[in-house]
Amino acid sequence: MSILFQQNRGLWWDGDSFHFIEQTLLPFTEKVIVTRDWRVIVDAIKRLAIRGAPAIGVSGAYASILAFREAKGEMNQWREWSSLIAKARPTAVNLSWAIQKLLDASDQFEGNPEDAILATANKIASDDEAMCEQMAEHGLEVVPEGSSALTHCNTGFLVTYGIGTSLGVLRRAHEKGRLEQVYACEARPLGQGARLTMWELGRLGIPGTLLCDSAVGRLMQDGKVDFVMLGADRIARNGDTANKIGTFQLAVLADRFHIPFYVVAPSSTFDPAARNGDDIPVEYRSDEEVWKYQGNQVAPAGSGAYNPAFDVTPNELISAIIREDGIIKPPYRF
Amino acid sequence: MSILFQQNRGLWWDGDSFHFIEQTLLPFTEKVIVTRDWRVIVDAIKRLAIRGAPAIGVSGAYASILAFREAKGEMNQWREWSSLIAKARPTAVNLSWAIQKLLDASDQFEGNPEDAILATANKIASDDEAMCEQMAEHGLEVVPEGSSALTHCNTGFLVTYGIGTSLGVLRRAHEKGRLEQVYACEARPLGQGARLTMWELGRLGIPGTLLCDSAVGRLMQDGKVDFVMLGADRIARNGDTANKIGTFQLAVLADRFHIPFYVVAPSSTFDPAARNGDDIPVEYRSDEEVWKYQGNQVAPAGSGAYNPAFDVTPNELISAIIREDGIIKPPYRF
Repeated sequence: MSILFQQNRGLWWDGDSFHFIEQTLLPFTEKVIVTRDWRVIVDAIKRLAIRGAPAIGVSGAYASILAFREAKGEMNQWREWSSLIAKARPTAVNLSWAIQKLLDASDQFEGNPEDAILATANKIASDDEAMCEQMAEHGLEVVPEGSSALTHCNTGFLVTYGIGTSLGVLRRAHEKGRLEQVYACEARPLGQGARLTMWELGRLGIPGTLLCDSAVGRLMQDGKVDFVMLGADRIARNGDTANKIGTFQLAVLADRFHIPFYVVAPSSTFDPAARNGDDIPVEYRSDEEVWKYQGNQVAPAGSGAYNPAFDVTPNELISAIIREDGIIKPPYRF
Repeated sequence: MSILFQQNRGLWWDGDSFHFIEQTLLPFTEKVIVTRDWRVIVDAIKRLAIRGAPAIGVSGAYASILAFREAKGEMNQWREWSSLIAKARPTAVNLSWAIQKLLDASDQFEGNPEDAILATANKIASDDEAMCEQMAEHGLEVVPEGSSALTHCNTGFLVTYGIGTSLGVLRRAHEKGRLEQVYACEARPLGQGARLTMWELGRLGIPGTLLCDSAVGRLMQDGKVDFVMLGADRIARNGDTANKIGTFQLAVLADRFHIPFYVVAPSSTFDPAARNGDDIPVEYRSDEEVWKYQGNQVAPAGSGAYNPAFDVTPNELISAIIREDGIIKPPYRF
């Protein structure tokens, strides 16, 4: 059995090869790819077989290590390939950031540059893993005994080198016997909750219940949710938080029922250039994502659609933000 | 071309045969079934090829007419078949109500009973058609010039013998040039908004935009919605309204953004036995409806799911209820 399934990880570097779960096939097929070819990793990032900002950064770093080995000391060749790796997903800040770290390391180090860049890649991965554990440790404090959580999208081991952000907290809370179950929203249009979170919960042995995004209000009205916990794509200086579409309405509903609403995100998610939510651009994606679902047509072909990938939750609806350095409560001033 | 498509109707009785659109194939295939066999109609009601309370009632009445003709004067045979028709969907009150009306008519009428029961069936159909027009007339008053509506599930010509309830109002408002466009929620799990409302809007030439149920909050935050208008499955004496799952959270979000929230429903939807929402039972349906969508698996097979078919919107979130006899504003005392 792959070490990924033994340890419930999404990514693994064994010193020689890079291992990752082919996410596009989940939950229907559990396939692990083990490669020494940096091009396979670049392709996986482009195809969204590897997704999630931290996971992309770590994968890019190890892709660059594999490129270095293939270049056999030709530093210019390595730099050229590394710049291709950095461009695999142009909007993924973690990717270009990780590659730049390796380039800097190779410039500054005396002796064998491979040692320098490998140490840097390993540091990126281990830092990511450690941050997940730190967030989980802090997050545990807000999880009541015998509670049920509601989460959105996918924030677990598939998207980091560790246990994940929000789902990492829930995993540790379940191990400690405090968390009884997790309700997972489907997260249409792409269904990361249905496909990935439900699969991760199953792997981890955490009782998971799936619901349509239309059923959140009723679930809370039914008194089933003790707290909401989810991740973030970008957080502004005042705490306004951009995350997967659907997050904002969860926050409004939680507010109505006085249910605590927690965001779990590492400090790299905070954007010092954004004063508030208005400074965070929201990406609008294709109509086809809405009138299709996982490749199957679900509405008249070519239907016009409203399809924002994210929404922005105003700070006043967020009970606390959990980072690797602690629990931050309002008023938020980052 | 079928008269159904010429006139944008879901059902039609031509004096001899009954015509209906096979809804299970929409929006992918536009198939009309024309039949003189009451068993075909019963089967269609069972298969949800005909759905929506008023449509089921009218279809049952004409099925009984066809059964009468087949029975060739054998009244006991007709009564036996009519009772089978009445049981096609046990929970559909309109169906048993319509059949009872025909049985009563045959008992009370002197002369040829066919004239009596046919007149009664035609009256059920024409009353339903007229009620839709009356609701549309009243509803027009609340539609601002140049406005955009948000609707949920499917409430148009497929579910009545006329133009529909909520979608009927929007249709007349668009014809009068007041309504610019309709946003339609997908309405997972069964996707009646995606499949049926988007198809109806296309047929009617009304600009329609589909959105995932997760995107409602953002749509309102974006300032795109002038009012919400949707139907009801059952309304309690105090105005609490049961409707398709997702309705309640639309109402909470509309409230936050001070967007008017209208329910359009004929008086037959009001349940005098229900004092408030607590008296309305909510049906919970199979997990499979959530981990599948239109027959395709979208989450791990066998996933546990939370799947209420309806939710209840408390009266304080409803700006007005539009019936065939006028616009009713809070406080509601039916």
